Amino acid sequence: MSLPISFLSDFGYQDEFVGVVHGVLARIAPDSRIVDITHGIAPGDVRAGALTLMRAIQYLPQGVALAVVDPGVGTSRTPIAAETSWGFFVGPDNGLLSPAVAMVGGATRIVAIENPELVIPSEGATFDGRDRFGPAAAVLAGGEARLSDLGGEIDPAGVMPLMLPLSDVDGEVLSGQAWWIDRFGNAQTNVSPEELSVLGVRPGSDITVRVGNRDHTVPWVVAYGAVEPGTPLVHVDSYGLIALAVREGRADEWFGLSEGTRVSFSRPA
Amino acid sequence: MSLPISFLSDFGYQDEFVGVVHGVLARIAPDSRIVDITHGIAPGDVRAGALTLMRAIQYLPQGVALAVVDPGVGTSRTPIAAETSWGFFVGPDNGLLSPAVAMVGGATRIVAIENPELVIPSEGATFDGRDRFGPAAAVLAGGEARLSDLGGEIDPAGVMPLMLPLSDVDGEVLSGQAWWIDRFGNAQTNVSPEELSVLGVRPGSDITVRVGNRDHTVPWVVAYGAVEPGTPLVHVDSYGLIALAVREGRADEWFGLSEGTRVSFSRPA
Amino acid sequence: MSLPISFLSDFGYQDEFVGVVHGVLARIAPDSRIVDITHGIAPGDVRAGALTLMRAIQYLPQGVALAVVDPGVGTSRTPIAAETSWGFFVGPDNGLLSPAVAMVGGATRIVAIENPELVIPSEGATFDGRDRFGPAAAVLAGGEARLSDLGGEIDPAGVMPLMLPLSDVDGEVLSGQAWWIDRFGNAQTNVSPEELSVLGVRPGSDITVRVGNRDHTVPWVVAYGAVEPGTPLVHVDSYGLIALAVREGRADEWFGLSEGTRVSFSRPA
Repeated sequence: MSLPISFLSDFGYQDEFVGVVHGVLARIAPDSRIVDITHGIAPGDVRAGALTLMRAIQYLPQGVALAVVDPGVGTSRTPIAAETSWGFFVGPDNGLLSPAVAMVGGATRIVAIENPELVIPSEGATFDGRDRFGPAAAVLAGGEARLSDLGGEIDPAGVMPLMLPLSDVDGEVLSGQAWWIDRFGNAQTNVSPEELSVLGVRPGSDITVRVGNRDHTVPWVVAYGAVEPGTPLVHVDSYGLIALAVREGRADEWFGLSEGTRVSFSRPA
Repeated sequence: MSLPISFLSDFGYQDEFVGVVHGVLARIAPDSRIVDITHGIAPGDVRAGALTLMRAIQYLPQGVALAVVDPGVGTSRTPIAAETSWGFFVGPDNGLLSPAVAMVGGATRIVAIENPELVIPSEGATFDGRDRFGPAAAVLAGGEARLSDLGGEIDPAGVMPLMLPLSDVDGEVLSGQAWWIDRFGNAQTNVSPEELSVLGVRPGSDITVRVGNRDHTVPWVVAYGAVEPGTPLVHVDSYGLIALAVREGRADEWFGLSEGTRVSFSRPA
Repeated sequence: MSLPISFLSDFGYQDEFVGVVHGVLARIAPDSRIVDITHGIAPGDVRAGALTLMRAIQYLPQGVALAVVDPGVGTSRTPIAAETSWGFFVGPDNGLLSPAVAMVGGATRIVAIENPELVIPSEGATFDGRDRFGPAAAVLAGGEARLSDLGGEIDPAGVMPLMLPLSDVDGEVLSGQAWWIDRFGNAQTNVSPEELSVLGVRPGSDITVRVGNRDHTVPWVVAYGAVEPGTPLVHVDSYGLIALAVREGRADEWFGLSEGTRVSFSRPA
């Protein structure tokens, strides 16, 4: 019984990178189902890839998570595979896997992928998704190798974490950032509803949102339907975090946000 | 025996939305094949989604059609599932499903998706593709639920239709619109060859096409090969509708068309 | 036992073209696995499609390769299917298949796809991927037809080759071109490391690269890690060809390259 493989990358849709990795997976693990999480991560954006994998992981079928956003390919960063209660994670040791692994309870064991028998030989060393990570994911999924066959165990404490920005409170102002702008222009922040409730605001009341040096007092609603089309709002999004949205519109444009923009919340004056 | 699921959305390829729905489907119906119709519908463009689904439906394997273009998520629009002779349709009641359902002969039964046991709990109410439509499609595909298990039956007469623009004849001029510009710049109109024949023009003869206030007299051909590269033409496209094209070129640019542009046809003077 | 189908096209991700072909494949060969190589080939760019298929083929599971980049659809170009030691190739006779077929050792037999029983009837003749190539690939994959059932054999010598640009040496200068710019801005050339060694340069030494009328002397390295981030380099890429790259940057922007740009190499003065 082959495990499903969930696959995320920054390979995009223009070249054959995704297809070639699918080909490698299909050759080694012909019965494994592949779920493409997304391959639209901005090139080299490890943080966006890590946040995406973290958001997705609880909805994916247990098995193998293969993630490749790897600006350090061809350098000394270590290719790793981790065992967790959810299943296996395969990817570069650059922080990409860390938030998702933490979300499923952490790794019980981590190895470096270094067994040359499980690496596809290639003249260049720039496509580890095809030559190293793909084969590792496939042998784990197909049951042809155990984690320990991939390479030597490494200390989990030595694996690179991903530093996620924390919100902070200064007096009666809670500051965080927009850390994900989605296709629809919705802006998820790194602020939880519990943190926001410290300000004494509740769903159903108004809240003041500062972006740049402009204050916007908008309603905190439970569902878009509570406001008119075109109206900005604050809500708890489908992942449980505070987000800025505009009903039938784009919050990124309305508020002037991009990923990383500082956003502060306070009780209306 | 699981049914295949054909999946269309405006979720795009940048975020994990498509992958997360695939994950939900794979967890509930691990043996169902998924056909991605497209996820490149412009955000919130219900009409484009509906036309796309209508064009595709006859080529898809019978089973479940899952369609999510849902600018009204989080409002009072009803999530629905319909039973037809083709199979099941699952999506929002906003007109998205209506043309495809009509094309396969109409619905024999429609229910509101409201059974809380079949909805994935989530703090926010903005990702019904993941939490509500995906699970409904998967239980229907996997045979774990019947349509009536999803929720109460609703009156088909109360389901939102999609108003499709009709062509009209004024004297010897037949007017319609370009309602689909494809990746290659081809412009499909809402005009059928039968309607055009009323003007007394036939394949093989010339026809005058008015766009804006400019008239273009171009050949009505059966295949691109009848004209030279770079030459504009009128033909019956692969879906059986009148379309404007340029051999090895882009009709949208040549004629100055976008989706919704009025196009009129007449016999050359 | 159904064969896997690997599918490449210029259909893009906006319309339902890819999904409809998947639907046709799923109806005819419900047990065949489909590997999407890419559908992001620029519209009508036969050369880019051919190079992409050639690069990918050795990594794809043996079975059927379905490739559709077909600016001549609706003209007299022949739809063909070829038998090789790798498996079957299906697509238009416009050079698209030729480099990949050559890479796997050439075709043992080629037929024209002309059996009307294996073509989906359609009013227009502009979507052969759906109506002709897809069904042909699916019956070959599912074993429902043999190659000879598709149509009459044609002379391999009459099949269109793809003219690939060759590098040339003029004195001590080796000139080629950038023939693939990938998503990350890496520029693969049509120059092999063996050709480059003729100049007397070796990995580990510097090499002078001329683009336009500017000379850049950069290191020829084995892996990105040998240079600092932001630094340009020459290396053998993961397909075994000489490529220009910038560590953690874009070579196309740094050197001023697009597909087809002439690139010359010489020993530093």
